[in-house]
Amino acid sequence: MTSSIDRDDSKRLMVFSGRSSRQLGERIASKLGIELGDVTLKTFANGEIYVRFEESVRGADVFLVQSTCAPVNDALMELLIMIDAAKLASAHRINAVIPWYGYSRQDKKSAPREPITAKLVAELLQAAGVDRVLTMDLHAGQVQGFFTIPVDHMTAIPLLIDHFQAKREAGEINDIVVVSPDAGRAKLANHVAEKLGARLALLAKQRPEHNQAEITFLVGDVAGRDAIMIDDMIDTAGTLVAGVQTIRKAGARRVYSAAVHGLFSGPAFERLQASGLEEVVVTDTIPLPDHAPKDLIKVVSVARILADSVHNVFCDESVSEIFSGENQLF
Amino acid sequence: MTSSIDRDDSKRLMVFSGRSSRQLGERIASKLGIELGDVTLKTFANGEIYVRFEESVRGADVFLVQSTCAPVNDALMELLIMIDAAKLASAHRINAVIPWYGYSRQDKKSAPREPITAKLVAELLQAAGVDRVLTMDLHAGQVQGFFTIPVDHMTAIPLLIDHFQAKREAGEINDIVVVSPDAGRAKLANHVAEKLGARLALLAKQRPEHNQAEITFLVGDVAGRDAIMIDDMIDTAGTLVAGVQTIRKAGARRVYSAAVHGLFSGPAFERLQASGLEEVVVTDTIPLPDHAPKDLIKVVSVARILADSVHNVFCDESVSEIFSGENQLF
Amino acid sequence: MTSSIDRDDSKRLMVFSGRSSRQLGERIASKLGIELGDVTLKTFANGEIYVRFEESVRGADVFLVQSTCAPVNDALMELLIMIDAAKLASAHRINAVIPWYGYSRQDKKSAPREPITAKLVAELLQAAGVDRVLTMDLHAGQVQGFFTIPVDHMTAIPLLIDHFQAKREAGEINDIVVVSPDAGRAKLANHVAEKLGARLALLAKQRPEHNQAEITFLVGDVAGRDAIMIDDMIDTAGTLVAGVQTIRKAGARRVYSAAVHGLFSGPAFERLQASGLEEVVVTDTIPLPDHAPKDLIKVVSVARILADSVHNVFCDESVSEIFSGENQLF
Amino acid sequence: MTSSIDRDDSKRLMVFSGRSSRQLGERIASKLGIELGDVTLKTFANGEIYVRFEESVRGADVFLVQSTCAPVNDALMELLIMIDAAKLASAHRINAVIPWYGYSRQDKKSAPREPITAKLVAELLQAAGVDRVLTMDLHAGQVQGFFTIPVDHMTAIPLLIDHFQAKREAGEINDIVVVSPDAGRAKLANHVAEKLGARLALLAKQRPEHNQAEITFLVGDVAGRDAIMIDDMIDTAGTLVAGVQTIRKAGARRVYSAAVHGLFSGPAFERLQASGLEEVVVTDTIPLPDHAPKDLIKVVSVARILADSVHNVFCDESVSEIFSGENQLF
Amino acid sequence: MTSSIDRDDSKRLMVFSGRSSRQLGERIASKLGIELGDVTLKTFANGEIYVRFEESVRGADVFLVQSTCAPVNDALMELLIMIDAAKLASAHRINAVIPWYGYSRQDKKSAPREPITAKLVAELLQAAGVDRVLTMDLHAGQVQGFFTIPVDHMTAIPLLIDHFQAKREAGEINDIVVVSPDAGRAKLANHVAEKLGARLALLAKQRPEHNQAEITFLVGDVAGRDAIMIDDMIDTAGTLVAGVQTIRKAGARRVYSAAVHGLFSGPAFERLQASGLEEVVVTDTIPLPDHAPKDLIKVVSVARILADSVHNVFCDESVSEIFSGENQLF
Amino acid sequence: MTSSIDRDDSKRLMVFSGRSSRQLGERIASKLGIELGDVTLKTFANGEIYVRFEESVRGADVFLVQSTCAPVNDALMELLIMIDAAKLASAHRINAVIPWYGYSRQDKKSAPREPITAKLVAELLQAAGVDRVLTMDLHAGQVQGFFTIPVDHMTAIPLLIDHFQAKREAGEINDIVVVSPDAGRAKLANHVAEKLGARLALLAKQRPEHNQAEITFLVGDVAGRDAIMIDDMIDTAGTLVAGVQTIRKAGARRVYSAAVHGLFSGPAFERLQASGLEEVVVTDTIPLPDHAPKDLIKVVSVARILADSVHNVFCDESVSEIFSGENQLF
Repeated sequence: MTSSIDRDDSKRLMVFSGRSSRQLGERIASKLGIELGDVTLKTFANGEIYVRFEESVRGADVFLVQSTCAPVNDALMELLIMIDAAKLASAHRINAVIPWYGYSRQDKKSAPREPITAKLVAELLQAAGVDRVLTMDLHAGQVQGFFTIPVDHMTAIPLLIDHFQAKREAGEINDIVVVSPDAGRAKLANHVAEKLGARLALLAKQRPEHNQAEITFLVGDVAGRDAIMIDDMIDTAGTLVAGVQTIRKAGARRVYSAAVHGLFSGPAFERLQASGLEEVVVTDTIPLPDHAPKDLIKVVSVARILADSVHNVFCDESVSEIFSGENQLF
Repeated sequence: MTSSIDRDDSKRLMVFSGRSSRQLGERIASKLGIELGDVTLKTFANGEIYVRFEESVRGADVFLVQSTCAPVNDALMELLIMIDAAKLASAHRINAVIPWYGYSRQDKKSAPREPITAKLVAELLQAAGVDRVLTMDLHAGQVQGFFTIPVDHMTAIPLLIDHFQAKREAGEINDIVVVSPDAGRAKLANHVAEKLGARLALLAKQRPEHNQAEITFLVGDVAGRDAIMIDDMIDTAGTLVAGVQTIRKAGARRVYSAAVHGLFSGPAFERLQASGLEEVVVTDTIPLPDHAPKDLIKVVSVARILADSVHNVFCDESVSEIFSGENQLF
Repeated sequence: MTSSIDRDDSKRLMVFSGRSSRQLGERIASKLGIELGDVTLKTFANGEIYVRFEESVRGADVFLVQSTCAPVNDALMELLIMIDAAKLASAHRINAVIPWYGYSRQDKKSAPREPITAKLVAELLQAAGVDRVLTMDLHAGQVQGFFTIPVDHMTAIPLLIDHFQAKREAGEINDIVVVSPDAGRAKLANHVAEKLGARLALLAKQRPEHNQAEITFLVGDVAGRDAIMIDDMIDTAGTLVAGVQTIRKAGARRVYSAAVHGLFSGPAFERLQASGLEEVVVTDTIPLPDHAPKDLIKVVSVARILADSVHNVFCDESVSEIFSGENQLF
Repeated sequence: MTSSIDRDDSKRLMVFSGRSSRQLGERIASKLGIELGDVTLKTFANGEIYVRFEESVRGADVFLVQSTCAPVNDALMELLIMIDAAKLASAHRINAVIPWYGYSRQDKKSAPREPITAKLVAELLQAAGVDRVLTMDLHAGQVQGFFTIPVDHMTAIPLLIDHFQAKREAGEINDIVVVSPDAGRAKLANHVAEKLGARLALLAKQRPEHNQAEITFLVGDVAGRDAIMIDDMIDTAGTLVAGVQTIRKAGARRVYSAAVHGLFSGPAFERLQASGLEEVVVTDTIPLPDHAPKDLIKVVSVARILADSVHNVFCDESVSEIFSGENQLF
Repeated sequence: MTSSIDRDDSKRLMVFSGRSSRQLGERIASKLGIELGDVTLKTFANGEIYVRFEESVRGADVFLVQSTCAPVNDALMELLIMIDAAKLASAHRINAVIPWYGYSRQDKKSAPREPITAKLVAELLQAAGVDRVLTMDLHAGQVQGFFTIPVDHMTAIPLLIDHFQAKREAGEINDIVVVSPDAGRAKLANHVAEKLGARLALLAKQRPEHNQAEITFLVGDVAGRDAIMIDDMIDTAGTLVAGVQTIRKAGARRVYSAAVHGLFSGPAFERLQASGLEEVVVTDTIPLPDHAPKDLIKVVSVARILADSVHNVFCDESVSEIFSGENQLF
Repeated sequence: MTSSIDRDDSKRLMVFSGRSSRQLGERIASKLGIELGDVTLKTFANGEIYVRFEESVRGADVFLVQSTCAPVNDALMELLIMIDAAKLASAHRINAVIPWYGYSRQDKKSAPREPITAKLVAELLQAAGVDRVLTMDLHAGQVQGFFTIPVDHMTAIPLLIDHFQAKREAGEINDIVVVSPDAGRAKLANHVAEKLGARLALLAKQRPEHNQAEITFLVGDVAGRDAIMIDDMIDTAGTLVAGVQTIRKAGARRVYSAAVHGLFSGPAFERLQASGLEEVVVTDTIPLPDHAPKDLIKVVSVARILADSVHNVFCDESVSEIFSGENQLF
């Protein structure tokens, strides 16, 4: 008789989705050729969230898909509890797939006695027990460094570029100028301009005198051109719409807006509809609400990118090859 | 010339309140003879919470008062962000005063693949940087052990006992029997019975046969007596109201209900109003909503206990003396 | 030539036993069809414990079986040193199988300036490097939350229920009442009563006046019935024997006692022999000493439960199915 | 007799300097009215660094001044060893003052399988035992979030603005345009432009076709104006000098360069001397080597800012007031 | 009204003793002019240790004196529980004073699959929450590095040297040779020889052929001299007594033995009494049992060194000055 | 459709070398039958090191070979950055192979306010993310305990013994005496003497009177014998060469020197060439510079030992068997 038992080892991949990303989770699972795993997610009368995995995750590599979009605190807490439950249920490795990383703009102290909430969120995820994070187009790429675990930082910018490339090839747009909506996005705008063989312009704001209102001004030339305003996200659309006015006054022909993450908070839809924009292109990192103006807003899906990433992480294949490693823009 | 600078050291106490406990925070500060510290707390259009301390907390012992009651995830996240901001603003020591500790019932796995969310919350608070927690009447006292930092666990049970003691001295009630609303609270009921010189009875539930409905039955005698049902919290009041029926059928004269934490979720108010209860006594660990039936529900305040605790923690005086160390009931 | 070497991966399970659980360890290994692994365990003249694994554990999933029963500090330290040695010898995953978890009653502060030793023990195990804990019928299930690693919390209560079920079917007992020996165990007693289709009664203690001795009283009816007193453990048997008197005075016919963990400390055996109990049923989570009254005390073995748990943990199969997940009683 | 000894507490501040920042350390100490503390720092024949504090630091708040400039690994390791020695010598609180934070540009993965060395450095400092970091004008402000300890992030940009403000008031320059040397610095350039009431222009690079060389082009208008190129640092000066050519071709009158950190690596001095720049303004965060072209390079000192910061940290006074909290530029 | 409360800060020192070092603890407290603090320490019938501080330690610097001598696991566990209780009772800083550090010889792996128990003990102490350790004459000074917290490593060797210096001045011994009892203690013996102006000799062991018994041989000359065998500890005295024979055969006149720690395990007293040694000198780091041969064994007290160390740690004064920093011998 | 994807698991081994151990790394890889992995390692003009793995390491067991020899800080930092990059690139397990562990002599505080740099280095390696360390002949074996991760501590002493055994069998040396170069190495010298069947002698230093110079003296007899001085390392060779003089004066015939690690710092080569030593034997844990006196210095390779260790670690086979576990000498 021997003192040990041997068994061949194998790995098992499972994908579960939180309530913020149900549809995207299904798209990812579908591209992987599996069904979403079965997990009970409910909210008690007192507002507490209850999670229970309905199938064994013992020894599995689980991928939990959840954008931490509005209601952001509920979405985040649900993800944290899912991670905790997976850990206690002895999952082998827990991967959080967070297509939109809430609080990502609070990534440094820009005034005294402020938090760095994007870092706090990283600490919370790690405290809950996550082993790896897969996210997209962070507001600043440095947020990767807020984690001590590996972060796979994917980008959907090539999808947006492809969208306009197709438009140009179809003759819908030409003489393109890519416009950065503020001074902090010039690098992204220049990258998109380079890929489209387009010109670059820049919007910026200054306060002429102390106590005067900020004005938006344009650096560069847009007259007679089709302008694309590119950003990582659209939130309340205030700055964006102010920029559209400035560009149109400067003689731009058609104005488009593109961004990875469509938050569309507060008055965003009203502002966009009144802005004169031709089209607003975003991805499905955040689900579009039913009352969104579907004729104005065009959604391209990141499901293929995320499914490929999940697959390659699981199979120890290179993730960087999925989009040529173009994640250096943020 | 010397190579050092010396200064006398002193300590500074500051109390801030989150948006879930604004009124209780003010009561505590008032009993300490100070004003609540100034902190900006707001929610952006996209649901993200923003925190900024408006006065310096550098070197101070800060006490952050926040019950993590509904909306529980917002309240918890607000507290976590306040802790993070206080830490980055170089507070000397950060104390979370959490009169009601949300998720405290999810304190063990009672089914496979469940989380232990009360432990997760402890981990989150510690990841954010809290140095100490002050809380009241946890659902199970073992939750103290979920932290690696000191937890001061205060109790409001003596306030509830005092309430009924006064009633009896006023001749409003007599021949008291204290009834545990379920099998898990017999120890608490026995303690209250002992203090009131009352008898003890117990409600329990059993399922007579597999696939049959659970029935509530009474162990002990209540006939002709005034009954007090004691619990740590009232949530949706379902079990409580079922118990009231059973007791009344068993011949109890008047029935009262008392609990530290009044969550009153979902149909709680309707059920209580239809229950025939004489009175429902709770504390202000959770703010009572405006639409509560004020004639039925009596609130006693824990502000004095918490203010004394904050004072004694700050001054390195014993906290256990505030209520004779009677925190062993949960 | 390539830059890597590949090999197929496999897992190896090994079971080792500390000196407190040698017999139980052998039973578990035997049910798994293997021998206990070879480890040197000795105590030097100065009281220090020496551990050395005599066969390679590199890459193996090792299960270290050790109840931390008396002499508890030696048993605990031996387990900690075994964990350390296994870690430094590059075991892949270290599982502590602790059928009886010593210090589990010190699970919260019930008086000021007390430790929470059950939490301390959890911290020590984790500091030593354990990856997972498998234990049984903790005094309070919340102790699971004292760990940040997964805890598999098994129960032997069904074995005890089966024992009395068999007795009833054999006509040895009837008209059963299950009695909780103190107010804190009513939930467990109610569960057992439900499973046996029995009635429920409750013993409690009160101090009638300040400075008077505590008296034990009964809530519920036991007259003419066969009574089973159920608890998680029997230590010095003082409370248990006091309860037996009270029940017998109240007219119970035959009185039995059952518990998972038989510590039998100090005068326990003498008390039990003088108590008039028909039988005392415990499990082998703690080895019964040679001088125990074997005619009074009946031992049922947990080896099958633990062997199944070890097997399922190793094979990534569900542990909860072994006993229908009935671990919610503590 | 009593069981305790009491003593009044006081705090002691001490400043020590590593070998990379000896002169700046002396300036800071001098502004605080003290001498630098006595510490032995030497390098053995085998290259290992030896550190020993020659005066007691027990209970003191120590500030260790060390820019991690070239030779960067020696400077960093010296700082880490100083921190370790201060910790083991029981310093109360260890503050690293790092005017220039080496490796700060490696702050995210911009290609697959790269490190995030700026984060690694943060981890190393924390592993060594630092309690707080005080640094200046990080390449990206998000590096603050790489730490779990508080970081005071100061800025020297106002010193540079003051320098040019004075020049303009003296009539030396006028019709100013502030030029961002690449797309990623437009936000900083816009801020400086706003403060100087100047115009904004932007340099960017694109590769016209795949496999062609990158070209630098200008967005905005500089003809007939005095141009100031602003950046956080000057390293080998390659991009800077290419930008100078482009600006001059576009008709700029006089061209100045300003940056906080003057690394001047490799061919920097030769390039700058050949560039036609009027003046290069930097601070003393990095010591200027003896062979630097002193007529071209103007150094302004940050000693006052750092001394004030050290003082305010020690005295628990607000650090943000020292420069109006203008640290949001990076 | 203001938003803060200020108070002057002060520090409080308290000394408590575990049951292994009660007498030494009292000597230390006495030299500090205070009484030992009041703490309940008891062992339950089941072997579990119970600890409760009977006076408030909130905010105090507590020093817990406990040698981890036999029964070593009980002594260590008692110390760990005291640390835990002090931490949860909000002591400001917890110092473990461990005159004899049990398991200190298991400080590296000298065979495969061994633990490094001295490191494990360091991890356990830190897991329990100790802030600082004060110990004496570790078997290897490198054990300091097993901690991440500061360790004050004191030495009693000068006491032993003084003892023999006095003997020589009294004419009791002369022509001294200091003998290292094995090859690993030559450095210590040489240091003592230098201080006493004595010669040096060395005992070593070799196995002449594989499978033959080890023989002890002498390097150096002892004929006609008074020999002092010096070591850090005396355990079972086997090697020591073998060395005495060898030295005596080589013609030594009188033979003395000195060591800091007198464990005297197993047959030590019998061996020493039969050895022909003139005198065995040890310190009181470990209490001498009542049955020790008091005429042979001379005890010198370390209480003054430890009291001075405790005082200086508390007052932030240099500890190294107490014994001229001569802690480099181990 | 199912909710999971399964795949067979396998492990992949890759070996990479830092710039300090390029040649040794190649030897190790060659003995394993593979090529070194492809990694870019470069130093920027400003002294910062840049690392990028040029092939995927996702899921692989990577072994990073790097002696932290001079320039020690660059070598250490390069290793730390390689570890960080491998971790972020999702290597499964990161093993640092450190044939010579720099700073290993700074392993305890031998004077007040010194660091324990060998421990700091262990902390830095762990902070960077290393999973295991493989090293050779540490100055003190206790350094293993500075890590919380497993350390495989190999020894090259048998290679040195074999070297002299062969010499003796060839009749080149006889009547051997092994001499410890100082009091701290007697244990090692005794071990080598035992293996060679040789005698033992010991060099030591004393200061006859305060303020006089230290003198080196010999204990034991060397006259007419071939002497071998054995040590773990040769640094500046000062103590070694002083010992050679003393031995030669005492009548030794031929004198050899052997050590595992040849640092040869500062004037080492000059001193050795003038010393009259017959031969200096070292290993290739540190690369020998081109200007070394090749006729005097004999290098034996440790590549086989390290390759076998890497292989056995990867295959979960015993490492201790490679050299019979003789790692207890340091």
